[in-house]
Amino acid sequence: MARFPFSAIVGQDEMKQALLIAAVDPAIGGVMVFGDRGTGKSTAARALASLLPPISAIQDCPYGCSKDDQARYPDVCGTGPLRKRPVPFVDLPLGATEDRVLGALDLERALRSGEKAFEPGLLAKAHRGFLYIDEINLLEDHLVDLLLDVAASGENVVEREGLSVRHPAKFVLIGSGNPEEGELRPQLLDRFGLSVEVRTPGDIESRVEIMRRCAAQEADSQGFADDWADEDAKVLRRVDRGRKRLASVTIPDAVLHKAAELCMAVGADGLRGELTLMRAAKALAALEGAKTVGQAHLVAVAPSALRHRLRRDVLDETGSTARIERALDEVFA
Amino acid sequence: MARFPFSAIVGQDEMKQALLIAAVDPAIGGVMVFGDRGTGKSTAARALASLLPPISAIQDCPYGCSKDDQARYPDVCGTGPLRKRPVPFVDLPLGATEDRVLGALDLERALRSGEKAFEPGLLAKAHRGFLYIDEINLLEDHLVDLLLDVAASGENVVEREGLSVRHPAKFVLIGSGNPEEGELRPQLLDRFGLSVEVRTPGDIESRVEIMRRCAAQEADSQGFADDWADEDAKVLRRVDRGRKRLASVTIPDAVLHKAAELCMAVGADGLRGELTLMRAAKALAALEGAKTVGQAHLVAVAPSALRHRLRRDVLDETGSTARIERALDEVFA
Amino acid sequence: MARFPFSAIVGQDEMKQALLIAAVDPAIGGVMVFGDRGTGKSTAARALASLLPPISAIQDCPYGCSKDDQARYPDVCGTGPLRKRPVPFVDLPLGATEDRVLGALDLERALRSGEKAFEPGLLAKAHRGFLYIDEINLLEDHLVDLLLDVAASGENVVEREGLSVRHPAKFVLIGSGNPEEGELRPQLLDRFGLSVEVRTPGDIESRVEIMRRCAAQEADSQGFADDWADEDAKVLRRVDRGRKRLASVTIPDAVLHKAAELCMAVGADGLRGELTLMRAAKALAALEGAKTVGQAHLVAVAPSALRHRLRRDVLDETGSTARIERALDEVFA
Amino acid sequence: MARFPFSAIVGQDEMKQALLIAAVDPAIGGVMVFGDRGTGKSTAARALASLLPPISAIQDCPYGCSKDDQARYPDVCGTGPLRKRPVPFVDLPLGATEDRVLGALDLERALRSGEKAFEPGLLAKAHRGFLYIDEINLLEDHLVDLLLDVAASGENVVEREGLSVRHPAKFVLIGSGNPEEGELRPQLLDRFGLSVEVRTPGDIESRVEIMRRCAAQEADSQGFADDWADEDAKVLRRVDRGRKRLASVTIPDAVLHKAAELCMAVGADGLRGELTLMRAAKALAALEGAKTVGQAHLVAVAPSALRHRLRRDVLDETGSTARIERALDEVFA
Amino acid sequence: MARFPFSAIVGQDEMKQALLIAAVDPAIGGVMVFGDRGTGKSTAARALASLLPPISAIQDCPYGCSKDDQARYPDVCGTGPLRKRPVPFVDLPLGATEDRVLGALDLERALRSGEKAFEPGLLAKAHRGFLYIDEINLLEDHLVDLLLDVAASGENVVEREGLSVRHPAKFVLIGSGNPEEGELRPQLLDRFGLSVEVRTPGDIESRVEIMRRCAAQEADSQGFADDWADEDAKVLRRVDRGRKRLASVTIPDAVLHKAAELCMAVGADGLRGELTLMRAAKALAALEGAKTVGQAHLVAVAPSALRHRLRRDVLDETGSTARIERALDEVFA
Amino acid sequence: MARFPFSAIVGQDEMKQALLIAAVDPAIGGVMVFGDRGTGKSTAARALASLLPPISAIQDCPYGCSKDDQARYPDVCGTGPLRKRPVPFVDLPLGATEDRVLGALDLERALRSGEKAFEPGLLAKAHRGFLYIDEINLLEDHLVDLLLDVAASGENVVEREGLSVRHPAKFVLIGSGNPEEGELRPQLLDRFGLSVEVRTPGDIESRVEIMRRCAAQEADSQGFADDWADEDAKVLRRVDRGRKRLASVTIPDAVLHKAAELCMAVGADGLRGELTLMRAAKALAALEGAKTVGQAHLVAVAPSALRHRLRRDVLDETGSTARIERALDEVFA
Repeated sequence: MARFPFSAIVGQDEMKQALLIAAVDPAIGGVMVFGDRGTGKSTAARALASLLPPISAIQDCPYGCSKDDQARYPDVCGTGPLRKRPVPFVDLPLGATEDRVLGALDLERALRSGEKAFEPGLLAKAHRGFLYIDEINLLEDHLVDLLLDVAASGENVVEREGLSVRHPAKFVLIGSGNPEEGELRPQLLDRFGLSVEVRTPGDIESRVEIMRRCAAQEADSQGFADDWADEDAKVLRRVDRGRKRLASVTIPDAVLHKAAELCMAVGADGLRGELTLMRAAKALAALEGAKTVGQAHLVAVAPSALRHRLRRDVLDETGSTARIERALDEVFA
Repeated sequence: MARFPFSAIVGQDEMKQALLIAAVDPAIGGVMVFGDRGTGKSTAARALASLLPPISAIQDCPYGCSKDDQARYPDVCGTGPLRKRPVPFVDLPLGATEDRVLGALDLERALRSGEKAFEPGLLAKAHRGFLYIDEINLLEDHLVDLLLDVAASGENVVEREGLSVRHPAKFVLIGSGNPEEGELRPQLLDRFGLSVEVRTPGDIESRVEIMRRCAAQEADSQGFADDWADEDAKVLRRVDRGRKRLASVTIPDAVLHKAAELCMAVGADGLRGELTLMRAAKALAALEGAKTVGQAHLVAVAPSALRHRLRRDVLDETGSTARIERALDEVFA
Repeated sequence: MARFPFSAIVGQDEMKQALLIAAVDPAIGGVMVFGDRGTGKSTAARALASLLPPISAIQDCPYGCSKDDQARYPDVCGTGPLRKRPVPFVDLPLGATEDRVLGALDLERALRSGEKAFEPGLLAKAHRGFLYIDEINLLEDHLVDLLLDVAASGENVVEREGLSVRHPAKFVLIGSGNPEEGELRPQLLDRFGLSVEVRTPGDIESRVEIMRRCAAQEADSQGFADDWADEDAKVLRRVDRGRKRLASVTIPDAVLHKAAELCMAVGADGLRGELTLMRAAKALAALEGAKTVGQAHLVAVAPSALRHRLRRDVLDETGSTARIERALDEVFA
Repeated sequence: MARFPFSAIVGQDEMKQALLIAAVDPAIGGVMVFGDRGTGKSTAARALASLLPPISAIQDCPYGCSKDDQARYPDVCGTGPLRKRPVPFVDLPLGATEDRVLGALDLERALRSGEKAFEPGLLAKAHRGFLYIDEINLLEDHLVDLLLDVAASGENVVEREGLSVRHPAKFVLIGSGNPEEGELRPQLLDRFGLSVEVRTPGDIESRVEIMRRCAAQEADSQGFADDWADEDAKVLRRVDRGRKRLASVTIPDAVLHKAAELCMAVGADGLRGELTLMRAAKALAALEGAKTVGQAHLVAVAPSALRHRLRRDVLDETGSTARIERALDEVFA
Repeated sequence: MARFPFSAIVGQDEMKQALLIAAVDPAIGGVMVFGDRGTGKSTAARALASLLPPISAIQDCPYGCSKDDQARYPDVCGTGPLRKRPVPFVDLPLGATEDRVLGALDLERALRSGEKAFEPGLLAKAHRGFLYIDEINLLEDHLVDLLLDVAASGENVVEREGLSVRHPAKFVLIGSGNPEEGELRPQLLDRFGLSVEVRTPGDIESRVEIMRRCAAQEADSQGFADDWADEDAKVLRRVDRGRKRLASVTIPDAVLHKAAELCMAVGADGLRGELTLMRAAKALAALEGAKTVGQAHLVAVAPSALRHRLRRDVLDETGSTARIERALDEVFA
Repeated sequence: MARFPFSAIVGQDEMKQALLIAAVDPAIGGVMVFGDRGTGKSTAARALASLLPPISAIQDCPYGCSKDDQARYPDVCGTGPLRKRPVPFVDLPLGATEDRVLGALDLERALRSGEKAFEPGLLAKAHRGFLYIDEINLLEDHLVDLLLDVAASGENVVEREGLSVRHPAKFVLIGSGNPEEGELRPQLLDRFGLSVEVRTPGDIESRVEIMRRCAAQEADSQGFADDWADEDAKVLRRVDRGRKRLASVTIPDAVLHKAAELCMAVGADGLRGELTLMRAAKALAALEGAKTVGQAHLVAVAPSALRHRLRRDVLDETGSTARIERALDEVFA
């Protein structure tokens, strides 16, 4: 069955923007998706992954290394020629053990030959792609922390069972969670680059349109994908352009000032707020083909970059998003 | 001893309708049965399974694959000819370990030959049949989640003990639970397609009739089954017809509108409500031999499709079923 | 030391009646004994088991199969001739592991010969006899559930450690518990067929008589058993007669009506109440040599069959037994 | 260093009486010692054990079986001649594992020869002697229960790790506990035959005498033991006489009546109260050389036999001992 | 780096007295040190150990047995000649496993030769020396209990993993703890012989002196040790004299009376209070070269011997030390 | 990618001073960093480590021993020539097991050759460098305690799995934690030498400057490092000078008096406060090239040395830093 096309998703613009930014600059640090159940959170992430062009990877490398990776990790990578592979999309199965996530001692080889070899885990599979974790708030904190560490450093360091391995693991971490079911610790939330809120559409027309598209896709998934192929191709061209331009986008001091003012106005702890604002605005500018970051870019990414970093203010019951909008009004008034 | 016939079950019409819908369209996503203890919940599910015609399966396949499955999973399926097998009915025994549910490393082979082979579990046994879980609310959440994941995807992905296996596991998940004994998390409930409520019959005549039929069945189960064979055959013909027609049933936009309105009126979170309404109404139309879904079908399946998805409203103490009926009155007034 | 004779037990008529009914119809589903500590609960069960005539079992069968069992379970049963064995009485030792209860992989054979063989557990030992569990309320719920499942189905299905075994395990489950020490969940209680209450006798004469008999038995257990042999033989004749007649006892519709009325009057959830009433009344009629169940039989077994199935009524503080007696008065007025 | 002599213990008459009764009739069911820390609870038990004459045991038997035991347990006992051994005194070390208490699979033999042999545990060592458990209230309930089961049946039945062993284990169980540190469950307490309370002596002279005797014993333990040898010999003669006469002591009906009245007056649940009263009074009569149990014997043992069996009465704050004394006054008035 | 000299410790007289008493009579039963963090608790204990003269031990004995030990434990001791060893000082590392504390099966030998040999643990290392446990209140109760059992009996009995070993383990147990961080159970505290309180000095001069000495020791530890060698030699002579005289010190009845009066006045449960008072006073007398214990000795050791044994009195908020002083005033008035 | 240069860190002077003091005198006992998330805590520590000159270590030594270490630990060190290595910086990965931290039995060798060899852990890797622990408050207390023990003694003593190893492990322990996420126990905090507070800068200019430098570093890390090379070289010269002079710095009695007065004024428990003040002031003096410690040095290090040692005063809600400043004003008025 063909995947649901990225561009056939009805609404959910903030989520789509955040996923595209992460596709352009994976160093942005992961996307956290808050929202009602049954709103297609995983559908969008999967759709984006299958829309992206295949990667070139060393054929016999268990990590799917690029030439660059091979140069940095000669010990663990393969030696064969480059071959195309689809962009990895790993869905962390509930109940996956730490062993399978991180990788572990290859017991079969250990028993057969007495050799201590490393068996790569799901982090290895996710290298150069996406790692999706549904209901991340149900995962143990230390595992979330591990995943965020690896996502941030782009490298998986395993120190267990007498193994000491280091392999590349660059991926976009996408977590989804329902705030009604318990929250992530602020310390963990803060380490996500962006966060978005998805809601059930509130108008009849959107809901009917969703049912219509689902019915069409269930009836003939390939035909449905064909119908949306042109739209998906446009999205792909935007991502491609963004990736190429990202390095050369500049950000004027005036914009940096606005970013700092905004973070102070909303009361975000630490400096991750403004650093993420800066990076996300650059990625958005690149996506849109701009050479310089403008205030509009800042405004567009501010809710995603700051929403999950606001200090709780017991006297101010305004929601996070509203507080950011109020601050945007003040700073850009 | 012969099974209790499906058509000999006294009353319990909602449960019977839901089971038949799931038999017609297993993609509907499982049936959750709420209700008093001792009301024959598992009897009905078992009866339906033994009423259905046998399946054709690759003879030496541990998963009972069809020809289609064989084509999609050549690595794990057998190679022999097709043979008939009864429809699988797996009753998840309490205390079954995660290993036995998912499948695990075949230790015997590992020890004998040093080979890492997969030993299929209960999910494999349930492929193309029913998986019944009594008192599902007593199961650990993560196991329920796993089962719902597999039920939704029709595929069991095992990532543990150095194994990485993927095999087909399409089945109708039937859970039963007594709400007085603790509830499933809303997040889990929402993932069930349909839910039904069964109650102890409130009239003497029904109760006496049940005792009479039980006594007759205990005394001569084969004779009793023979008495009901004609009725069961009628049910089977309806299921057969439904399965054949399902793909061609259409659903008019006006009905989709009503479905969306209904979901908004009862306040169901997410989109699973209307998507399930749409699918269940199609399956019911197919069962009844209709070519197009009508409003009556929508009304008939609405309680089962929505009851377990209502947002709690602390100011409105009306029960779920009553709230749905009120909304049906409004929307179809 | 010879066992304490069944007929030498002072008082405790309800418990004795329940045990005899279960001996006549093991399908009744187990007996739960509530009561003070030190009132001879296990003595009565043991006494009944040693009073019953030996069973005929396949000599080399680890399950003590009858000829019928052998035909149904040819894979696990032996092949030798029939031999007499005493009726099994298994006292579940506290701390017995799930492995020893259900049976498990025979590690010795696995290590010696690499074969995966099943080592039968206590459920196998109890086949065709009694399984006694003192302080069943201290057992983990899932183990109680397992035992009730097996008791109900007469079959032990083991799905663990790569084993998949099915062997006969028909036994009368007898649980004892002190309600002051925590209760079984209603869901579990409901699955017991009968329940009885035993109390410390309230009159001096009974208590002195008990001391006298205990002293006599401690001083000369064989002589004491001889003194009561005639009384025990009478009991045995009643059980024998009951077993033979059970299949042919009939139950008039009027009596079924009364059973349904009674269950509705006391407010028993589900249908297990009337089904058990019906079965227990038949067994009692058989014990007494009657061909048809009469209202008196119903009245006699009603407290044992219903006491543990009453819905809690917070406004009505009347004890269970009193509520049943009140309902009996109304229904049979 | 020689043991502290039993007769050199200052005061503590109730504890000494209970230990002597248990030495005469081990079937009495264990002694529970409540009391302040540092009052010589274990000293008294140890002293009694070393005062008793050595036992005759099969030389190569791991259980120290007598000729009678050998006849009943030919499978597990040795075959050599009889040899004298000191009366066993086993002090259950804190942290002893269930394996070491019950016995377990002999891993050494299993690994060396592939044989599944049983390695006897501490219960085996305690056969025919004493098992002392300090701070028994800190033990896990299920272990206490196991120990009481074995103490009551005189037999250790092991059903674990594929072992199924049965060996004699008759011993006097002595538990000590400080009620301020958490209590045993009533269900467990009730299974102890006798209970005693020890307190720190309240008069200067006793306390100085204790210091004097301790100092003397620390300075020259052998000399101190010699000084008390005659007193200890007298105690030994009383125990010897008691053991010989126990079987022939009779108990008149009038005394049994008084026992039942007393138990009803204090409100002891169950029948263990009067049965223990009866047995303890017989043992005391035997110790004192009487042929018939008199009321005085009943009065003397009543506090030890009943104190731990009183139903809690929230309206009556009188301590257990006082309630028994009040009842004794009424019944024997 | 040379150790900090015992005599260079500023103040802390009560702790130093308690350590010296324990060095003279290790049977006193361990010293518990309460007090602020950072007050040199472990420094003092270490200093005392390194001041004491080396012991003579069987060269190849893993327990460092003396000739006497060798005679009592021929099975476990070595057979070589005597050699000098420093007095053992074992610092129980946090996280040391029960195995390493008690000793355990020597896995290496078990795997290599199939032999079940014992590998001595830290208790073996501490024989004839000191066992220091920092923050003993953080240790699990059962481990503290084990350590106190061994300290009291001078013997380590291991019953685990199929091992049954008994070896000498006489040592002075020194525990330190901060009462603000949770307390030991009274039952455990009572088993320590002595307890002392250490506080941060309250005067500037002492604190400056401590800094000065620390700076000097850090700069030149050997030179600093040389400066204090004479003072340390004096302390050693006192300990030597005390050990020699201990056996011959007598204690008059009048002093015993005072000890008993004192214990009653402060309300110490049990008899460990007066027995410890008696022993500690004898050891102090021996240290000071006296032949007879006088009242002054009693007064000097009373706070250390009784402070941790006072019954809590909810109406009397006076601290333990103050209550003892008040009682001393009364009794010796 | 080149590291962020130490001197390019904006602000955070207290943290930088504490790290430099620890680099000069590692015996100071670790640095605890409190503060908001995202303020570059780990960046500073890493930057310092990569700024320091490489160490000379025995080539084949798994611990990176110096010649001196080799002399003290001949058993565990290598024998080869000296080679340069970068200063170790170990980042304790979350979820690192105690085995990997402390080192453990080398299972591979044990299985291959039956030898019991030690496999060094992360503490071995950190020898002569830095051990950084992010969110140390989330670590289990006993692991923190272990790390502090090793940091204080400079030696790792392993007593587990039958191993008994001792190897050098001198490192600067740096812990970071957010006080909002739970605190370390005072007992643990007290064992850190210094503590610092880092905050998000409160002025726009600093924040913009940070963004500018981050952007520059992300764009061209090597060029950015080159720009700051001179500044970093100056820092390195200060550390070098401080290390050489430390031993010869003297501290006048008047300064010691002030230190003691200050500790009493703030109410620091124990003596670690003044001892750390003394050592930190000496290290600061050495860093600055002074020969004698002056009052200014004391004042400069007082907050870092005392902040985490203040007794809580429920009546005084003043923060720790403010209380120290108040005391400084008083003492140095």
